[in-house]
Amino acid sequence: MKMDISAPKVCAMDFRVRVTDAGADERGSIVGVAGFLQEIAAHHARLLGFGTARLNESGVTWVLAREYVEMRRYPVYGESVRVETWPASLERSRARRDFRILDADGAELGVATSVWAPMDLATRRLGTIPEGMSADFPETPCHSVELPGRAVSRLRDVEAEARILARRGDIDVNGHVNNVHFFEWALECLPGDTACRPATLDISFRAEAVAGQVILARCARQDDGSMLHALVREDDGAEVARVRTTWASSSEGR
Amino acid sequence: MKMDISAPKVCAMDFRVRVTDAGADERGSIVGVAGFLQEIAAHHARLLGFGTARLNESGVTWVLAREYVEMRRYPVYGESVRVETWPASLERSRARRDFRILDADGAELGVATSVWAPMDLATRRLGTIPEGMSADFPETPCHSVELPGRAVSRLRDVEAEARILARRGDIDVNGHVNNVHFFEWALECLPGDTACRPATLDISFRAEAVAGQVILARCARQDDGSMLHALVREDDGAEVARVRTTWASSSEGR
Repeated sequence: MKMDISAPKVCAMDFRVRVTDAGADERGSIVGVAGFLQEIAAHHARLLGFGTARLNESGVTWVLAREYVEMRRYPVYGESVRVETWPASLERSRARRDFRILDADGAELGVATSVWAPMDLATRRLGTIPEGMSADFPETPCHSVELPGRAVSRLRDVEAEARILARRGDIDVNGHVNNVHFFEWALECLPGDTACRPATLDISFRAEAVAGQVILARCARQDDGSMLHALVREDDGAEVARVRTTWASSSEGR
Repeated sequence: MKMDISAPKVCAMDFRVRVTDAGADERGSIVGVAGFLQEIAAHHARLLGFGTARLNESGVTWVLAREYVEMRRYPVYGESVRVETWPASLERSRARRDFRILDADGAELGVATSVWAPMDLATRRLGTIPEGMSADFPETPCHSVELPGRAVSRLRDVEAEARILARRGDIDVNGHVNNVHFFEWALECLPGDTACRPATLDISFRAEAVAGQVILARCARQDDGSMLHALVREDDGAEVARVRTTWASSSEGR
């Protein structure tokens, strides 16, 4: 049997939507979804032998540079969700990992793609993909969804702002704020209630945040109906993330 | 066959310890454990027909008044954990729900007990247990662990303090800060790193917190080696929770 080396190596994982994955109205939040993607990405990277622990031996760790999530429907509290992921492509020192989010009947709730870069632990600079890793990626890129454009635009005119104090409890194994909190924080300044379910969310991670820092979450509606967000460190004004969200016209949004 | 009406109605649920359930060192945190207990408690209350949604029809909701957790070993990231829970006793307008936390081999990682009170949604006052609920409780109290004393003591002399800004993302279906964050916040002021694994944690919930409020997390070591904590709202000085933790002498602690 001829092996199809361009076929993606798919890993699947089931999640039950917990209380803490859901918003105040008991429907899954974008933060809950981001948590599922993070969980399966970490799990699969380990399975393939290029997880954080293994990379750390070479003085390198993975950094999530960008993630784009497109949701058709958010699951509800208690619902079973299957997430599939696979190494999707290698591009110029960046690895891409894609996702599909399915309900119990196999219907697609959403898709996502993510861009990862190896970071040198000593210099904290982004480096090149370690050798021997390309074998795990398909010869032909295999994406569940395309990135919407080359980069997330910079927010210029601020319409709303919220202050956020980063806590110890937000810190993860890399010693900085876990990236799922950036999803949460980006939506903290939105007017209205706490149900945060954008139709799409495109996030670009630009700097680290640590406990004790104050992060300013800013946003402004754009002419095309989308919303631009920025997370900015109060002390030095550095952008830690840029985000663009789009919202369905119905109650699916806020 | 004679029915054993004193046998507890046990519900079991399996959890895989997620990245977000673990601390910076990839071992499960007390917040992760508190999340498991919350999840299965909500699930089982619904199964038995006295979940929040059902109670709400009578204008009542459940309020967690106190929880006591005793851990022998914290699970690690990726580990499978089974949690068992059951209605343990009815006492003077309070319902008790107990828990056992087991590893994949059935060894006991920890035990917990919790005290619940029905709250009138209109007056926000604690009420009496609705009729018809006693059938779900054992005739003889069936506890996995006893509460350590009648109440958690008040913290008097403050040794350390941390400021916490409650966020929208902390809010749950009851419209106030989800109780698992109180576990996290109580440990925010401790000296040292972010690994928060007390041997025991006894928490008394006294008031609500909502988004935008500043909560002062305070603590002080006591003569008996335990640590007393208080979560206090900055604006009106109200105690939202009192906590007592004990710590193992080894690295199991902090």
